[in-house]
Amino acid sequence: MKPRPTHVFESRKLSRFLGFSFLVASETFQHTGSFKFRAAMNTVLNSEAEHLVTISSGNFGQALAAACESAGKKCTVLMPATSARVKVEAVKSFGARPELVDVTLKPRNQWLEEYIAAMQAAGEKEIEVVSPYDDDRVIEGNSSLMDDLAPYSDRFDTVLVPVGGGGLASGVVQGIKRNGLSCTVYGVEPSIADDAARSIKEDRLLANKTEPMTIADGVRTLSLGERNWKILKDGLDGVLTVEEEEIEEAVRLYFELANLKAEPSGALSLAALKRYKATDLLSDKKPLVIVSGGNVDATIYAELIR
Amino acid sequence: MKPRPTHVFESRKLSRFLGFSFLVASETFQHTGSFKFRAAMNTVLNSEAEHLVTISSGNFGQALAAACESAGKKCTVLMPATSARVKVEAVKSFGARPELVDVTLKPRNQWLEEYIAAMQAAGEKEIEVVSPYDDDRVIEGNSSLMDDLAPYSDRFDTVLVPVGGGGLASGVVQGIKRNGLSCTVYGVEPSIADDAARSIKEDRLLANKTEPMTIADGVRTLSLGERNWKILKDGLDGVLTVEEEEIEEAVRLYFELANLKAEPSGALSLAALKRYKATDLLSDKKPLVIVSGGNVDATIYAELIR
Repeated sequence: MKPRPTHVFESRKLSRFLGFSFLVASETFQHTGSFKFRAAMNTVLNSEAEHLVTISSGNFGQALAAACESAGKKCTVLMPATSARVKVEAVKSFGARPELVDVTLKPRNQWLEEYIAAMQAAGEKEIEVVSPYDDDRVIEGNSSLMDDLAPYSDRFDTVLVPVGGGGLASGVVQGIKRNGLSCTVYGVEPSIADDAARSIKEDRLLANKTEPMTIADGVRTLSLGERNWKILKDGLDGVLTVEEEEIEEAVRLYFELANLKAEPSGALSLAALKRYKATDLLSDKKPLVIVSGGNVDATIYAELIR
Repeated sequence: MKPRPTHVFESRKLSRFLGFSFLVASETFQHTGSFKFRAAMNTVLNSEAEHLVTISSGNFGQALAAACESAGKKCTVLMPATSARVKVEAVKSFGARPELVDVTLKPRNQWLEEYIAAMQAAGEKEIEVVSPYDDDRVIEGNSSLMDDLAPYSDRFDTVLVPVGGGGLASGVVQGIKRNGLSCTVYGVEPSIADDAARSIKEDRLLANKTEPMTIADGVRTLSLGERNWKILKDGLDGVLTVEEEEIEEAVRLYFELANLKAEPSGALSLAALKRYKATDLLSDKKPLVIVSGGNVDATIYAELIR
């Protein structure tokens, strides 16, 4: 199964409301509802293993499950015991096995190591752990987004992309190079999770002390991955930060004016556009905002759009 | 400004949940958020008048405003005084004049006639009232949806389309003919607003006694338009009815499984698919469901998705 072309549009109502013309590239209609399917599918196709394992409460788990199903591989997703039931069911629906683990007891990596060790002791050899971002196959998979966007390159000169572990942002940078595009790229992160902004500023990989509890749950990472950092430290033109209320407002604006259901992490780039549109960074630019995904719980979403 | 191509996709999660494969054609990303822009733009381009007037609390008002703006014509939208503020603002944002009227005092047509008479008395000659559905230009405009869908014709053999005044359904029938497609077409309406189903059954144009208060507010019409009826009485293979709870569930399913923000009227076709998928009408078919629009108030939507 191939990734679906990204959904590119300009919302006249939204552009007019903001007084600023820009393009939207939305991955909300990607298989499993987020860009992560690009990463997962490319990884699965380039893995020798018969059984792939990851730990995820969110989009990567579903994406890996669907990719493994399509390639006929076995898949296990370790999920925090507190994961929403609908997410556990989604993983199951793609034929993968969800394993609920208590992440307050042990760090995620330890759960993964112990699970792999147990499987290997039980005789499984062709088993591999997949990182949602710190993996060359993941980055390459995500870079296909820019192949989809290359035909629109006369309509944008600046890309705003959400940053968590940096999987999507590093894919974007790689894809821009491969397609010979020339444009400025800004990462966007919540200001309460500004490890990437600080890393770029100090030119060394820095981490948050704890997982930041931003509403943008897709970017609740401690730091960029090492492979991602290598690409992003020179590939990004900067990292813009936005406040929690600005992320919430962006979700609402997509709903109200563009009929787009975006998850908070996906709305980061619009939040940054609204915050920085009058500054030198954007005022005379043609921006493209990337919406990374649309999977958000109904209860949270209902609160956000009111 | 040309109508945007419709957004065609299959949601694997949704298809899998329903145990039935089908295609979605969504007009939620059309200019102004519904198929009505197709109708409005074609009407504006084929009108001699300099000032177009309609009465609408909903999608047609916005669509006509945007079409008139793009063609450099004047536009007035008579709106029920109870219309949501956001809808009044939307009409204004496209440079049209909203005129709030109390539709409990006089019938809508009388408001229109009086407004036109007043304008003509004031010296306006090039003024014309536009019907949201009972107009050949409207039907022709809507038929362009099937031009967009013709390239996908090997992927569907049955079309499910929401029916209110019949503007979209008659456009679909006309577009299918023009493109030489062979497929079955079912209209879908709420069972508490089943005038089209009764009309087809009795082979004469019947009306509801009062405007039915279905959640699907886009199809709260008294009856099909006369021009629409002429096309639909032979063009439709039937009209399927669905209950209010089924419409609500369909909105929720789009949200939860397909990341699609659909308005209740737009979700009618999915409601019918779910209700009739195991029957002879659909069980061995390849259906396409048309989502007519996505404009729904946040408060109502928040209730629906919980």
